Amino acid sequence: MTKKVVLVVEYNGSAYKGWQAQKFDVPSVQENLEKALSVIANHTVKVVCAGRTDSGVHASAQVVHFETQAERSERAWTLGVNTYLPDDISVVAARHVDDDFHARFSALSRRYRYVIYQADFCPAILVKGVTWTYKSLDVNVMRQAAKTFIGTHDFSSFRAVGCQANTPVRTILNFDVHQLGQYIVLDVRANAFLHHMIRNFAGVLMTIGAGEQPLEWAQQVLDAKDRTKGGITASPYGLYFVDAEYPEHFNVPVCKLGPHFLPFVDESSYELSS
Amino acid sequence: MTKKVVLVVEYNGSAYKGWQAQKFDVPSVQENLEKALSVIANHTVKVVCAGRTDSGVHASAQVVHFETQAERSERAWTLGVNTYLPDDISVVAARHVDDDFHARFSALSRRYRYVIYQADFCPAILVKGVTWTYKSLDVNVMRQAAKTFIGTHDFSSFRAVGCQANTPVRTILNFDVHQLGQYIVLDVRANAFLHHMIRNFAGVLMTIGAGEQPLEWAQQVLDAKDRTKGGITASPYGLYFVDAEYPEHFNVPVCKLGPHFLPFVDESSYELSS
Repeated sequence: MTKKVVLVVEYNGSAYKGWQAQKFDVPSVQENLEKALSVIANHTVKVVCAGRTDSGVHASAQVVHFETQAERSERAWTLGVNTYLPDDISVVAARHVDDDFHARFSALSRRYRYVIYQADFCPAILVKGVTWTYKSLDVNVMRQAAKTFIGTHDFSSFRAVGCQANTPVRTILNFDVHQLGQYIVLDVRANAFLHHMIRNFAGVLMTIGAGEQPLEWAQQVLDAKDRTKGGITASPYGLYFVDAEYPEHFNVPVCKLGPHFLPFVDESSYELSS
Repeated sequence: MTKKVVLVVEYNGSAYKGWQAQKFDVPSVQENLEKALSVIANHTVKVVCAGRTDSGVHASAQVVHFETQAERSERAWTLGVNTYLPDDISVVAARHVDDDFHARFSALSRRYRYVIYQADFCPAILVKGVTWTYKSLDVNVMRQAAKTFIGTHDFSSFRAVGCQANTPVRTILNFDVHQLGQYIVLDVRANAFLHHMIRNFAGVLMTIGAGEQPLEWAQQVLDAKDRTKGGITASPYGLYFVDAEYPEHFNVPVCKLGPHFLPFVDESSYELSS
């Protein structure tokens, strides 16, 4: 009998060409995960994730489902699978889930954090885990600019040329900007995202925060509905997939919001916006 | 005229076979730094550091000196050099210094932090930046055990077989253990360290913290003066060189204590011990 299992997976994306398995021999998170799951299941396993991440992008809590004929404990799907994974990918939770669950189609929202590190010199230790800027950024102005994007809009200006979505319309549910010492964290939740959307948000907000464009530029870029008006696409290394929300009855494991090197940003600091 | 320059250097050691340049073609921090400095100086530069770090060990503030005939600004020795360094090595401060300064011989003390991350599953995102344990550790017992090592002792039990120091006697000036969420940070300052000394301290303290040996075992290992009685050498990935102290008149740049992903551990949380 086929069963469905949901996993929460953490990964450091810096060594991977993104989530998605490719035809050619390039390293992907998906391929590594499917190989490890297939060993434990003793048959070929295919996985579906909540939100495919790009080359270099990380996840503290990607949500994944797969189907299997194997009878295994939740311990086997976590600790067992981890023994076959490289150490920069880790299954952190596993649970059996109803047949009608789908990691992508059941998701009500996705949440990402974009982590900027402001310092005179490049932070060598976390260089692949943050986006460095030597410019001083005005966090209050960035927070105001971020509010521009909340709601349902045509986000053509923030959409990569190669984006395959049917529509450029998305609904941003929350968008806040936190400062923690030298970290500036963009925290954004939406029903779904377009390709490069958050990195393009980060590019605009960093430009405004540095005083190179006025606050109103955020609205102008949004209104332009034209990617060429949107400025730079910020680095992938600061971007983390941190949560996907599902209807409660699926009982998907809930993990602490990451990335875990920011131990003092928690749910309570999230300003809910309509 | 030859001048002396002092640098503070941050590096992520996970891609390097340690600080020291080797005869054969293995990547070292020293070799990369000397190459970059030589470009800026326009002559061959050789550097001396405060404390040579092992393969995989990091530094948030390694101190380095070199001699040069070149007249360059401090900006050239930081930003200029950084343009020739890989992005996991970064010069964070540079200053001209008196001729009698020596990064190794003038140092009064060295300070390291050893960062443990306690979680059920391996933290994939920071896997090369912390030492993971799934065991729950009793931080209070670890802190008491650490006090055993304070003072001047024969540390033969904590010295790697290949250690080339003339004597196993060292003076531990401070040794504290902090907990910050899921991080446990060993913070230790000494006049100097033996090879693998801190990783061997970490091995003993983690064993005691996990309840696998009693508190008194720390004293027993110390008294044994025998490496084979000292248990495991903990992973290099949690270890950071964070500070070297010099006589004030040298005016060596002082940097914030790292690693910077622990923004809330600062000097004020350091319990001074005699």
